[in-house]
Amino acid sequence: MPEYKVILAEPKFEGNIGAMARAMKNFGLMNLILVNPCEIGEECYRRAMHAKDVLENTQSCESLDMALKDLDYIVGTSGIESSNDRKHLRKNLSPKQFASKMADMEGNVGIIFGREDYGLYNTELEKCDIVVTISASKEYPILNISHSASIVFYELFCAQGEDKEIREASGFERDKLLGHFKNLLDAVNYPEHKKNKTMVMFQRMLGRAALSKWEFHTLMGVFSKTLKTLEMSKIKPTRTP
Amino acid sequence: MPEYKVILAEPKFEGNIGAMARAMKNFGLMNLILVNPCEIGEECYRRAMHAKDVLENTQSCESLDMALKDLDYIVGTSGIESSNDRKHLRKNLSPKQFASKMADMEGNVGIIFGREDYGLYNTELEKCDIVVTISASKEYPILNISHSASIVFYELFCAQGEDKEIREASGFERDKLLGHFKNLLDAVNYPEHKKNKTMVMFQRMLGRAALSKWEFHTLMGVFSKTLKTLEMSKIKPTRTP
Repeated sequence: MPEYKVILAEPKFEGNIGAMARAMKNFGLMNLILVNPCEIGEECYRRAMHAKDVLENTQSCESLDMALKDLDYIVGTSGIESSNDRKHLRKNLSPKQFASKMADMEGNVGIIFGREDYGLYNTELEKCDIVVTISASKEYPILNISHSASIVFYELFCAQGEDKEIREASGFERDKLLGHFKNLLDAVNYPEHKKNKTMVMFQRMLGRAALSKWEFHTLMGVFSKTLKTLEMSKIKPTRTP
Repeated sequence: MPEYKVILAEPKFEGNIGAMARAMKNFGLMNLILVNPCEIGEECYRRAMHAKDVLENTQSCESLDMALKDLDYIVGTSGIESSNDRKHLRKNLSPKQFASKMADMEGNVGIIFGREDYGLYNTELEKCDIVVTISASKEYPILNISHSASIVFYELFCAQGEDKEIREASGFERDKLLGHFKNLLDAVNYPEHKKNKTMVMFQRMLGRAALSKWEFHTLMGVFSKTLKTLEMSKIKPTRTP
């Protein structure tokens, strides 16, 4: 995992700086560098919510070049994607592609977000090793700066594989549930020629639903109660087509 | 592709409503429903930028139930994921899992975002077929509402263009299946105090499994046969704990 530094080029609205700090902390990023920022006041801290530590940890620079010192890899962001692939400056990666590229990286990676109105200038994009663009609606493709940042940080976070899956019912448990389902089909004289297909369907459904242990036990309970009630009735149900 | 409706439950800050409208338009979503919103003024329109049309198209409701009318599929969002898998209300999907599930869907899908401070109440989450949670840093996992929304909309946008094959069961069909499940629980004297929880679990399971029409009809068949067999037995089952 690289060490990320988030760089804002000449942010004009302090609210956006606060929102950015919050988005960073939400996804475990703590290093913010501001290039020639607007003044920071109450509104910025209000929007940062519980990310005051990110704001207090912030460095300020007078130029982008100063911010880029000591970086191993420079990533630009741009809301504009050229369909002309001769414009290599704008041959961009999606946030997902970027995140999967970063997963194996080491070193210091700087991610630059541009001005709220003009984004990054071409001379600034030229300094970047890659540019990330978020595909969006043609009608209005320009996202708010902290929204774009949230999406990029989210993809980086997902790529770390920190997602912890809820304990899923095991294969053994799934087989028991399938067994109960089969017993139910038998008990209600389900048409023989349909049984196999219906069993497979139920198995697939369970697969997609990805039951937790608790859900498994609850469903087992419903089946058990149904089978018991059917058995208690003690009459052999007549075969219906 | 389903038709999405974005529902905000009792938003308190007009700026967030504006930011939400912008995020929606960025990803091609136009239907916003506000439940009991704060007043909307200049700040809201400022934050919406070029998404004024989304704001002007907004519907307001006095209750969440009114907003949920005519929806085939209800999606909640929650910043909290329980590690305790008995809390089936909170067996949540990631935005990616959610988006890939939606790619095959038809009908009206409502995505609810909760209050800025309390999110959605449990009674509101109970109405949802599935709940989406964004994994984030343990230190500060609660995202700003329009940041969460941007991430969810972004994933939906990314998932578009995938093959549409399976026709999904509609909300009407899902409700019929839930009705049959309830009848089964009644018929087997399922403990009264567990019924509601088990019903919600079954609804969530169906939500995650995203049944096709064919699967719906097959399951309906199994339930019908079971209910008929139980009825034919004509004895009132004794209550067991």
